[in-house]
Amino acid sequence: MSTFGTLFRVTTYGESHCASVGAIVDGCPPGLQLSAEDVQVQLSRRRPGQSNLTTPRNEKDAVHIQSGIEHGVTLGTPIGLLVKNEDQRPHDYSETDLYPRPSHADYTYLQKYGVKASSGGGRSSARETIGRVAAGAIAERYLKEVYGVEIVAFVSSVGKVHLPATVAPPSLIPNDGNEDNDEAEDALSPEFRQLLATITREEVDKHPTRCPHLETGERMTKRILRAKDASDSIGGTVTCVIRNVPSGLGEPVFDKFEAKLGHAMLSIPATKAFEIGSGFRGTEVPGSRHNDAFVKKEDGSLGTATNWSGGVQGGITNGEDIYFRIGFKSPATISQAQATAQYDGTPGELAARGRHDPCVVPRAVPIVEAMAALVVMDQLLIQGARRSAAAGLPPVTTLPPTMVMPPQ
Amino acid sequence: MSTFGTLFRVTTYGESHCASVGAIVDGCPPGLQLSAEDVQVQLSRRRPGQSNLTTPRNEKDAVHIQSGIEHGVTLGTPIGLLVKNEDQRPHDYSETDLYPRPSHADYTYLQKYGVKASSGGGRSSARETIGRVAAGAIAERYLKEVYGVEIVAFVSSVGKVHLPATVAPPSLIPNDGNEDNDEAEDALSPEFRQLLATITREEVDKHPTRCPHLETGERMTKRILRAKDASDSIGGTVTCVIRNVPSGLGEPVFDKFEAKLGHAMLSIPATKAFEIGSGFRGTEVPGSRHNDAFVKKEDGSLGTATNWSGGVQGGITNGEDIYFRIGFKSPATISQAQATAQYDGTPGELAARGRHDPCVVPRAVPIVEAMAALVVMDQLLIQGARRSAAAGLPPVTTLPPTMVMPPQ
Amino acid sequence: MSTFGTLFRVTTYGESHCASVGAIVDGCPPGLQLSAEDVQVQLSRRRPGQSNLTTPRNEKDAVHIQSGIEHGVTLGTPIGLLVKNEDQRPHDYSETDLYPRPSHADYTYLQKYGVKASSGGGRSSARETIGRVAAGAIAERYLKEVYGVEIVAFVSSVGKVHLPATVAPPSLIPNDGNEDNDEAEDALSPEFRQLLATITREEVDKHPTRCPHLETGERMTKRILRAKDASDSIGGTVTCVIRNVPSGLGEPVFDKFEAKLGHAMLSIPATKAFEIGSGFRGTEVPGSRHNDAFVKKEDGSLGTATNWSGGVQGGITNGEDIYFRIGFKSPATISQAQATAQYDGTPGELAARGRHDPCVVPRAVPIVEAMAALVVMDQLLIQGARRSAAAGLPPVTTLPPTMVMPPQ
Amino acid sequence: MSTFGTLFRVTTYGESHCASVGAIVDGCPPGLQLSAEDVQVQLSRRRPGQSNLTTPRNEKDAVHIQSGIEHGVTLGTPIGLLVKNEDQRPHDYSETDLYPRPSHADYTYLQKYGVKASSGGGRSSARETIGRVAAGAIAERYLKEVYGVEIVAFVSSVGKVHLPATVAPPSLIPNDGNEDNDEAEDALSPEFRQLLATITREEVDKHPTRCPHLETGERMTKRILRAKDASDSIGGTVTCVIRNVPSGLGEPVFDKFEAKLGHAMLSIPATKAFEIGSGFRGTEVPGSRHNDAFVKKEDGSLGTATNWSGGVQGGITNGEDIYFRIGFKSPATISQAQATAQYDGTPGELAARGRHDPCVVPRAVPIVEAMAALVVMDQLLIQGARRSAAAGLPPVTTLPPTMVMPPQ
Repeated sequence: MSTFGTLFRVTTYGESHCASVGAIVDGCPPGLQLSAEDVQVQLSRRRPGQSNLTTPRNEKDAVHIQSGIEHGVTLGTPIGLLVKNEDQRPHDYSETDLYPRPSHADYTYLQKYGVKASSGGGRSSARETIGRVAAGAIAERYLKEVYGVEIVAFVSSVGKVHLPATVAPPSLIPNDGNEDNDEAEDALSPEFRQLLATITREEVDKHPTRCPHLETGERMTKRILRAKDASDSIGGTVTCVIRNVPSGLGEPVFDKFEAKLGHAMLSIPATKAFEIGSGFRGTEVPGSRHNDAFVKKEDGSLGTATNWSGGVQGGITNGEDIYFRIGFKSPATISQAQATAQYDGTPGELAARGRHDPCVVPRAVPIVEAMAALVVMDQLLIQGARRSAAAGLPPVTTLPPTMVMPPQ
Repeated sequence: MSTFGTLFRVTTYGESHCASVGAIVDGCPPGLQLSAEDVQVQLSRRRPGQSNLTTPRNEKDAVHIQSGIEHGVTLGTPIGLLVKNEDQRPHDYSETDLYPRPSHADYTYLQKYGVKASSGGGRSSARETIGRVAAGAIAERYLKEVYGVEIVAFVSSVGKVHLPATVAPPSLIPNDGNEDNDEAEDALSPEFRQLLATITREEVDKHPTRCPHLETGERMTKRILRAKDASDSIGGTVTCVIRNVPSGLGEPVFDKFEAKLGHAMLSIPATKAFEIGSGFRGTEVPGSRHNDAFVKKEDGSLGTATNWSGGVQGGITNGEDIYFRIGFKSPATISQAQATAQYDGTPGELAARGRHDPCVVPRAVPIVEAMAALVVMDQLLIQGARRSAAAGLPPVTTLPPTMVMPPQ
Repeated sequence: MSTFGTLFRVTTYGESHCASVGAIVDGCPPGLQLSAEDVQVQLSRRRPGQSNLTTPRNEKDAVHIQSGIEHGVTLGTPIGLLVKNEDQRPHDYSETDLYPRPSHADYTYLQKYGVKASSGGGRSSARETIGRVAAGAIAERYLKEVYGVEIVAFVSSVGKVHLPATVAPPSLIPNDGNEDNDEAEDALSPEFRQLLATITREEVDKHPTRCPHLETGERMTKRILRAKDASDSIGGTVTCVIRNVPSGLGEPVFDKFEAKLGHAMLSIPATKAFEIGSGFRGTEVPGSRHNDAFVKKEDGSLGTATNWSGGVQGGITNGEDIYFRIGFKSPATISQAQATAQYDGTPGELAARGRHDPCVVPRAVPIVEAMAALVVMDQLLIQGARRSAAAGLPPVTTLPPTMVMPPQ
Repeated sequence: MSTFGTLFRVTTYGESHCASVGAIVDGCPPGLQLSAEDVQVQLSRRRPGQSNLTTPRNEKDAVHIQSGIEHGVTLGTPIGLLVKNEDQRPHDYSETDLYPRPSHADYTYLQKYGVKASSGGGRSSARETIGRVAAGAIAERYLKEVYGVEIVAFVSSVGKVHLPATVAPPSLIPNDGNEDNDEAEDALSPEFRQLLATITREEVDKHPTRCPHLETGERMTKRILRAKDASDSIGGTVTCVIRNVPSGLGEPVFDKFEAKLGHAMLSIPATKAFEIGSGFRGTEVPGSRHNDAFVKKEDGSLGTATNWSGGVQGGITNGEDIYFRIGFKSPATISQAQATAQYDGTPGELAARGRHDPCVVPRAVPIVEAMAALVVMDQLLIQGARRSAAAGLPPVTTLPPTMVMPPQ
């Protein structure tokens, strides 16, 4: 349905050409300083028309907070959020209405509902993500304030243009094809870990592609413009890191941290793939090399020497950086003519009207960050319930010492 | 938590060394013929000791149905399922208790709960998956009976041993490294689509690795035995196809079909990656080639000429084969000595005692199938609610024809 | 939280003095004719200022539909609903802010959240019910269209002014005090059943008290005006009937129909009591008299000769009229001076400023109807999922005939 | 469905004549000392055969804990609970199978599922409550340990035999019938409040009726035996008090504390009515008398001088005693012959075979206590999440002082 989360719960509404899109954010902790500007900054990073790489539609996307806040402080009650649909133009798509757009949602929405919005795929519109980004910005505001959580996403590939192997996520580094060679440590380079540890949104935004490696960004630009010139489109991947998440988040067994995170990411339009930590690449590395050995950190607590796990072990965060990568397919809506069939099966050619994003990954960056914030926030509240409940109990004295948390 | 699903809802309990593991399956349609044998067959495919590639522990894993069935017919009430833990051996792990196993759940469970099971990671035990497999078998029984749904998973890679490019999922075929070359159609070969369309469990089970390509299976065997001999472990990927799923399943926007499927798969122990359809590979293929053109099928309905989408568009099934791939990391528990630290930070060496699976992917096959069945079943019920509700309404006459399902 | 329902799901936001109040209605069947007027009519019955018995605040409460509908037809996507807060006057309550209002939510909201809205009880405001009424109107539109469901609530008592015994719900008829006399059939009079079977909203609205028995309504008016004159308040009960609900709704065991209905009703502000069918009165009537004997109806199906059960047996609807009664306490906010204490414990006198409803039950009528519609709609969808799933199965042939639905 | 709760979540299975009944309790705080005996004590209070007032079936009802506990300490993982069905006797009811039992669940289960258990109403069996009682005992163990919560239910009426007015809940005291007389304070007597404040389970269990007023208990006994002798049945009410619940529990707006409590209670078989605090009686008492004035307590915090509210205001607990009353109808299964119809409509006479409880309220006492514990526990965890999240924020300095919790 249109609701995400258990204790920090977001419900969204709206499609391309209705009066507004919006969300209700329920479960925000009371007493948090929050302004519309906190939300607006991420909405503005999401909206189109920011460079010649994206659709030139000028959506102002100004958020109006309806409830849940007084004097700039959250009350703990639901926060209503609304963004008007100013640039509606509902007839722009009308001439092509006899055709379900290939690989778009027109056909499946009609199969599902029996009716569909005039704009086609209804809620599959990218405009639906406004509510997510607004809600995620609220979660992030809390996480940063209390835990110093930092969430930074960036573009790691566009088409076949990848980050260089030195700073690429493991799966972007091809294996050597030698089944008998286990030397694969380079798939998790110290430079990449360093990038994860230090990258900021400011750095990411320096290049219109939101790729933090500028030379690669330039090649991505060329790749996107080539697609644009051909009235075609191209996909890419977004990599995201979440720093300073407390250990202990994630609910065994069905709601493991990575399961919720994957759920969140795969609910973003156009996503087809998700991996955490070493991901698919980690399936090729023997356990003896892939295991993250424990080490004593300066503060006396345990950390890991490497981080193939991506900050999650057994479905629960371990305090290390959480990193993951999402694959976005090439956008389905292209203005190049395509041989396809009408709803009634009549063969023909479809060329989409209007202006379309040749590549969505730069704009997907704040959406990925928002969904990440929603997952962390919800899991934090759930674990907070458990820990505060357990904290009321007397110390456990009847278990063997190895079954109890040692004093730290 | 330990519950999965909205209308077809599975709740599991149990860890390695307690009295039993089990599940409650709520929401099974009434009037379904169901026997313990229907459930047992998949449990038996899951259990260890089936070949020299897996752990030799002999778990009988006989399921006992507690409720919800009379005279071999489901009543619609919750089905209680129980499998006794006969082979408990709780002391097998005891000497290593000072060490959290690297990349295992010992440390994170302790962080989460403050206490942990004597066996270590508690619910992260592979034994927890028994409840899922039993529940999935019930869902599958229904899906097969009513829709002819077929779910077949198989091993597509072990370490760097992949299926050959002709029958491999797209992401297992390396790209050509040429950023300016869009000729990538071979990433979705007709032979692979044919494999998806025809593969059966019987064929999969012909080789102990559960790889349907026997020559590759032999190389996988060698790879696994090499890991075993080195007291090491190796990961792999499982690919799964679901055939004959009706169109229209999946709930926009947060519960898209692939989001729920990804959630389900990433909740299986040791998973680190998930992709559907063209997955990560699809990010490299231009929209003009990646889009699945519509064609009129023999029965008059619409199908697609290709299936890069993997049977899902806009988060909703389109009636084509659903296929996806899951990455399982190399098992964390190895008997090779590892330099690591104790809970209190003291450095040392850990060598796990007991017998451990050098590779879990062959046994993961029925678990993947079970989770797939749970997702399809739940989404089917939810969509069934909508369609049966809409069916009661008079035909819509006030919408433009292109907004309404055409008569078929 | 602020969400109600599983498949027909309503989420509300807003308090007294924020920008707007509203709701998102998710799960509405697609293809339903729906206009703002369908919603407005119940909102208008809910708003204050309709007679001298209620608060004279003039809230226009015009609903604005944001999404989910095109050309007057529901799309199946979330319906965003918004009602602006035009008459805000946030400073009206300011002088009394040192005092938590006795039996109001000021104190408990502060205990819960640590902060509170300037208006006091925040979401406990009657204005929150706007979202419910709007959502309920949508549910009702469907239920009426497809099943002919009729939901009519009315005022059955104000203070000690009750409907006369001939047409009163059982619990409003005092027992005779004779423990050894079981003659209690009069507690469920044929006239009352006839009232339930025929009462309409038009009849209910004929009197400003919304009591369908006009002479009693006049006495209720006097009672309310007496409270008003004394700057005091008075409570009352609302009785509601739901006609034409299909049998089979309600989910054993925790979500029995009456459990969900009670949940819904007790979530309405100021409610303290709920009973279904014979309710508390039914605890005094022996089983031999209380049991509803089955009879063959004209259409060949089974009905019951009496209806002590109130249309629900074993938590599942049986097709008979569903009737229930809700108790609303006397409103807490009165302008009469009250001896009480400030937040810091200082004793003093509080006299609420502003204008307050001396009695809420007439305005509660559409709220009760709305919550009833939400419960029926959600249960209908859930049961629809089950029935449509079961309908796909072949007929059950292996059960004894008494365990299977006989052909009708 | 068969699951109750959000963070403390109970799922039950089982009907009368299957292998076992049981439950999975998910979300129990880790580190709690818990033994089977803690659970058994309430199960033993629930089981039949404890006096000549109940059915003489001898159910041993020994609980077997399957998981989630080691060395007598909870691990935080799901606790599997199982009670074998030893006294099954599935054929005892067979001769009457042509008749749906009036006011029982036979007919509605068949309408709902299309099939039914051989025992009739399947999950409507009182045996289903075993899982609830076991789960509730675990919740209660925690609540008592950490908060000193005390939950005591008792029988307040059987048929027309009520507790005397001095110690009766308000609604059991008839009003004076004078619409113009507001003198109704006696409906909440100091003696009754004293009873609520001090009553213990030991006192309740002193009389087989579980009525704490022994003379009334004797009259109840006579009333029950009169029903038994007539092969008839009689209903009654159970009143329950929950002491020492922290303030701030309950979630606005749909999950108000009383809404969840009402939901829980109305999910118990045979319940038809629920009221909290002054309940239906409170609808007759003017606001000026009904309001609970605040007073400074000895510890400096605020309490209320009276407690018409029943410990809940605005849907949130205020720290006062929570009390409520539930109405149980007269049991439907009686061995007296009843004129009714068969499933196919044929008129006839039904006399139930076997032994049946003439009155269920004494045995309902521990079930009511269990459901109360489940509600408090779940709400406590949810509020714990919020409070621990808010506690991490810096003090709010930008709100007017009256909007912030004063230092205490």
